[in-house]
Amino acid sequence: MIYIRAMMQPIKEILVLLFLAIFSKATGLKYAYSRGSGVPSDGASYCLSWRLGVEANNVRAWRTVPTQCLRYVENYMIGGQYDRDVELIVEQILSYVSDIVVSSGGLDAWILDVDDTCISNVFYYRGKRFGCDPYDPAGFKSWALKGGCPAIPAVLGLYRQLVDRGFRVILLTGRDEETFGQVTRDNLHNQGFTGYERLIMRSAGDHGKNAVSFKSEIRKQLMEEGYRIWGNVGDQWSDLLGDCIGNRTFKLPNPMYFVP
Amino acid sequence: MIYIRAMMQPIKEILVLLFLAIFSKATGLKYAYSRGSGVPSDGASYCLSWRLGVEANNVRAWRTVPTQCLRYVENYMIGGQYDRDVELIVEQILSYVSDIVVSSGGLDAWILDVDDTCISNVFYYRGKRFGCDPYDPAGFKSWALKGGCPAIPAVLGLYRQLVDRGFRVILLTGRDEETFGQVTRDNLHNQGFTGYERLIMRSAGDHGKNAVSFKSEIRKQLMEEGYRIWGNVGDQWSDLLGDCIGNRTFKLPNPMYFVP
Repeated sequence: MIYIRAMMQPIKEILVLLFLAIFSKATGLKYAYSRGSGVPSDGASYCLSWRLGVEANNVRAWRTVPTQCLRYVENYMIGGQYDRDVELIVEQILSYVSDIVVSSGGLDAWILDVDDTCISNVFYYRGKRFGCDPYDPAGFKSWALKGGCPAIPAVLGLYRQLVDRGFRVILLTGRDEETFGQVTRDNLHNQGFTGYERLIMRSAGDHGKNAVSFKSEIRKQLMEEGYRIWGNVGDQWSDLLGDCIGNRTFKLPNPMYFVP
Repeated sequence: MIYIRAMMQPIKEILVLLFLAIFSKATGLKYAYSRGSGVPSDGASYCLSWRLGVEANNVRAWRTVPTQCLRYVENYMIGGQYDRDVELIVEQILSYVSDIVVSSGGLDAWILDVDDTCISNVFYYRGKRFGCDPYDPAGFKSWALKGGCPAIPAVLGLYRQLVDRGFRVILLTGRDEETFGQVTRDNLHNQGFTGYERLIMRSAGDHGKNAVSFKSEIRKQLMEEGYRIWGNVGDQWSDLLGDCIGNRTFKLPNPMYFVP
């Protein structure tokens, strides 16, 4: 029996080590829900509340992502949940769109924001700790001037369907025309955004206006031209508030930055 | 060596069983995030997207909670995350409130919805599969007539601070005055909501108005009386849209039902 016990000793140790390894792994899963409650562990729970607050426009005028939410926002943006959130919203949009009878007059319009609506800046924000670093205008300028923002796949799909169904899609962005006009047109074209009615950017006279004022003025002009704005999609509440917001607005998620 | 091998056999089997048990447990954790990605498994991921869509007003006019989200919504409502979400919003409200100078004229108003804003119906909805069952007017009536809705703790705390700081708190609810007047007053009183300026309910002339129209009309009247509406808090977007919505609106979470 002593011989057997001696044989068992290393196996016992293996079992103990195995348990420890599994236990530490289980408790190390930062975003694991606690058993049965469906509530993520404290850090993720706070960040989930914060993100919900941002998306429902309860949390406003924030300058940076809370530092403790860096990993959470990183996981959210590149781990799949962001894509699923966008896809679900696009499904809602398409369901709404399917009930609209587009007239032949060419005045049934749809408004899309550009940055993080049509094309993504997530690769840029990866280098800015997903929004934990403060806004860096020079850094963003040099990124945007490369013209390499990839399409957001679900929104590109929506865009193609809108164009195919006869909507006049108007891209409305706070980007400055003089600085970013050509590169933005090229970037959009390269990513498959072709056939839009207009790309409207900030001109010299629009500097200093906040996004709500600038975009409201443009939408008002469009309605005065006779356009019916059936839908309006953006990743910022400032795309969707103000005047002439459209028959329906859709807020795409963006927990990386806030545009007032 | 044959003897030792024979001894090792059951230990090997234990190890295999142990691995299998742990593996099946890990994959059986419905709400566990997949390894490192921060994305919940498919069911919870869809329900999280759906809930976000509801809270950002992208998903509208839904009649019931998707059946596959029953456990998710149950866990959300009673597992702690709902409470944390409400607490974070109340923190945002208090931060906004702290910058307001309340005048002595008694016209600085604040509007709060009642159901699932001040007092909770989660116990009732527990019996309605957390909103997976369709709306049951008779069932809700008999629940509400009991007058046993508990206060939502964070909102009661907010309420007390608003009253203490001199805001005139106006409770504005779609509940019918004739049917629910006395029981609602008693329920609120018993739960600590004392000292409000008014409790405004639907009167005979308001039947048939949707929530946005009814509440917009009341808010318009209040502003004509001279009130400044500093804030407006509700669990439904129909509390917060329309006319005279207030200087700031705050959307409390409610993934259990939708009021048009």
